[in-house]
Amino acid sequence: MRVPINTITPESTSADITGWAHEIRDLGGLAFLLLRDRTGIIQVTVPKKKATPQVVEALKDISRESVVRVTGTVKPEGKAPGGREVIPDAIEVVSKAATPLPLDVAEKVPAELDTRLDNRFLDARRPRVSAVFKIRSAVQHATRNFLFDNDFIEITTSKIVAAATEGGTELFPIAYFEKEAFLNQSPQLYKQMMMAAGFEKVYEIGPIFRAEEHNTTKHLNEATSIDVEVSFATHEDVMQVLEDLVRSVYSFVDKNCSTAIADLEIDSFAVPEKNFPRLSYTDAIEIASRGMNDPIKFGDDIGTAAEKVIGEEMGRHYFIVDWPSSIRPYYAMPYENEPEICKAFDMMHPRMELSSGAQRVHQHDLLVTQITKKGLNPDNFEFYLSPFKYGMPPHAGWGLGADRLVATMLGLQNVREAVLFPRDRHRVVP
Amino acid sequence: MRVPINTITPESTSADITGWAHEIRDLGGLAFLLLRDRTGIIQVTVPKKKATPQVVEALKDISRESVVRVTGTVKPEGKAPGGREVIPDAIEVVSKAATPLPLDVAEKVPAELDTRLDNRFLDARRPRVSAVFKIRSAVQHATRNFLFDNDFIEITTSKIVAAATEGGTELFPIAYFEKEAFLNQSPQLYKQMMMAAGFEKVYEIGPIFRAEEHNTTKHLNEATSIDVEVSFATHEDVMQVLEDLVRSVYSFVDKNCSTAIADLEIDSFAVPEKNFPRLSYTDAIEIASRGMNDPIKFGDDIGTAAEKVIGEEMGRHYFIVDWPSSIRPYYAMPYENEPEICKAFDMMHPRMELSSGAQRVHQHDLLVTQITKKGLNPDNFEFYLSPFKYGMPPHAGWGLGADRLVATMLGLQNVREAVLFPRDRHRVVP
Repeated sequence: MRVPINTITPESTSADITGWAHEIRDLGGLAFLLLRDRTGIIQVTVPKKKATPQVVEALKDISRESVVRVTGTVKPEGKAPGGREVIPDAIEVVSKAATPLPLDVAEKVPAELDTRLDNRFLDARRPRVSAVFKIRSAVQHATRNFLFDNDFIEITTSKIVAAATEGGTELFPIAYFEKEAFLNQSPQLYKQMMMAAGFEKVYEIGPIFRAEEHNTTKHLNEATSIDVEVSFATHEDVMQVLEDLVRSVYSFVDKNCSTAIADLEIDSFAVPEKNFPRLSYTDAIEIASRGMNDPIKFGDDIGTAAEKVIGEEMGRHYFIVDWPSSIRPYYAMPYENEPEICKAFDMMHPRMELSSGAQRVHQHDLLVTQITKKGLNPDNFEFYLSPFKYGMPPHAGWGLGADRLVATMLGLQNVREAVLFPRDRHRVVP
Repeated sequence: MRVPINTITPESTSADITGWAHEIRDLGGLAFLLLRDRTGIIQVTVPKKKATPQVVEALKDISRESVVRVTGTVKPEGKAPGGREVIPDAIEVVSKAATPLPLDVAEKVPAELDTRLDNRFLDARRPRVSAVFKIRSAVQHATRNFLFDNDFIEITTSKIVAAATEGGTELFPIAYFEKEAFLNQSPQLYKQMMMAAGFEKVYEIGPIFRAEEHNTTKHLNEATSIDVEVSFATHEDVMQVLEDLVRSVYSFVDKNCSTAIADLEIDSFAVPEKNFPRLSYTDAIEIASRGMNDPIKFGDDIGTAAEKVIGEEMGRHYFIVDWPSSIRPYYAMPYENEPEICKAFDMMHPRMELSSGAQRVHQHDLLVTQITKKGLNPDNFEFYLSPFKYGMPPHAGWGLGADRLVATMLGLQNVREAVLFPRDRHRVVP
């Protein structure tokens, strides 16, 4: 019966393994086949004079990246990966790969990101790439466990919606039978409805869609968002949840993904320290202005260049708090005594923003005022506003970009590297 | 500090609780307020003569379903829910509900499903409804834990795609910048690509979109699918995974959701027994034909009426295996010696189909033949076919409807009851 390659040790006696032909070297009398499965690589050594005719014939038929089954005996071999090799009794080519390959899996020839993404099924065979997605799987698992353990209810909300909830125009339209509909840009409205429904603590991990025409290394048109909303909580409370979650996820990866971290050649994987520093927006733009030619004025957004300056100064995860109300959504709660700033925050990795959140406005009438102040028409927000009339509790929440969380955790230069099949303006395949 | 209502026992001394005004009864000298949060209901008793003027005034201001904070002392009271009541020192109306409510949360007035869905934020305050979604959350959690524990890698695949993968025409078109794109009807192609990528065991829980014009109690245009794919596995292997998963999920709910099960008044929640019976397609249509006026011929689909007859006969979860190749997708593996039937299966609840799966065709040339046999043009399947050229391992998998799994588990008559914001031909809001 087939066993994973990493279960074979120098002490094993026999092996029945099936994997991909990572490398084939024929030195005349001696041939080497490196066989790879998702757990590791093993050397298959064929001394041709001693091998059976079946083995010698089968060996000729193997092209790189073919699926091959090998049964045989295991011997210790100090020079081989894992200190062992297999001497085959039989070799079977299970699924032969055509040549040439569109992409070099053994990574001897570097490939452009576009070529890699076009051939993701080959690209993701590379241990350095599959390591990213093993860790991404662990990140999502750890995220959910943290939230489950903290009594959150997982919700599943619709991705097909009738209208924008954030007042923007960056929506993808869908032909939905006779109706107009759109892809949801965030579960914001639904999370808040579940606060009105008394669920108190909810989360969702799901796709969000933004029809923005950016072309950067940190934006995608389809992204995975980790969304959290908590009733009877302030922005301070949910910032604590966010910090605890991020640290818990790093811890889980640190403990459970050592092989994948080694494959990625990350030298010092470190769990972020407690107490992410808090920078007020005012302090943040002051720091940014010191490192930039054009100073940022109160009410300006903090762009990529400013993020970079501040991130270098901070050198760790941090929060930017107390944002100008003018540049945050209408649903961010203004401070009572200083309504030009609001209880909104961003959580930043030194390289980029990871999360945005706020205590929300839960009072119906204040919300109508806020919508009007933004130059929007409250009549267009009927479905959004209705739950606020019938017992909406105070609440706060945030959205955390899962793709960015993985990309920054693993030092990936482009967020596309953290996504199996990224979608941008130019890419809808494969 | 606010505590959950279910933490207050007859032995508690003081209470600080915030919840929704479930019921208010004013008997003159004595008033009762039933306060509800997501953990339960508690009686607040106000003897007006002894109460402070603040409490008496606040009480007058409470409309049903307002958010109310009560602090006070706890007393045992045999006639009250949970055997205890709170005598308030202070009452604060945190968020007042307008009257009349669009929906009666206390369930004294029954509501049509459409009214309930239009006002889901109120409907989901009902303990019987929130119980469904607490269990749904547990089902998803248990599903993921089962798969994680069995070494599956969670993948996240794109919902925006360039083309259909199943050859159907039931796709929602999206205006994606300058390009034509669609909402994905299943992650089938992507799961299979990850087999080509050597991930060996993958799963995804995510939305799928079908532009079908049905109007039934078991179909939705947006559904949640639990998708699994396993390399080096046969259909028999993944049927076992499916049975084990379903039983494991029922077990988890049985152990962890007793309050929610009680709220739903399910008398005998039972984990399905091992060894789901296997019925060949031929036997299945014979059973169905016995109970129907028009017999089903080999090659006919098994429709709702037939499912009902067979389900009543079986009385438990079961598999239908060995389907005619003519009515299964091109990617289902035909039996070598009997290619008119294939290694496909459905997993059935007595009430409806829950899952469809198969061993897949992994040989490129056979797949081209199969596509051609279905009257489709292989040239249109270039992106699908490419991974099969470069070392595709044998594999098998299935998709399991999460909404149907919850609906059948809890005896919900309409699958919409298992979905917070269902989408059908007539419904895109809220």
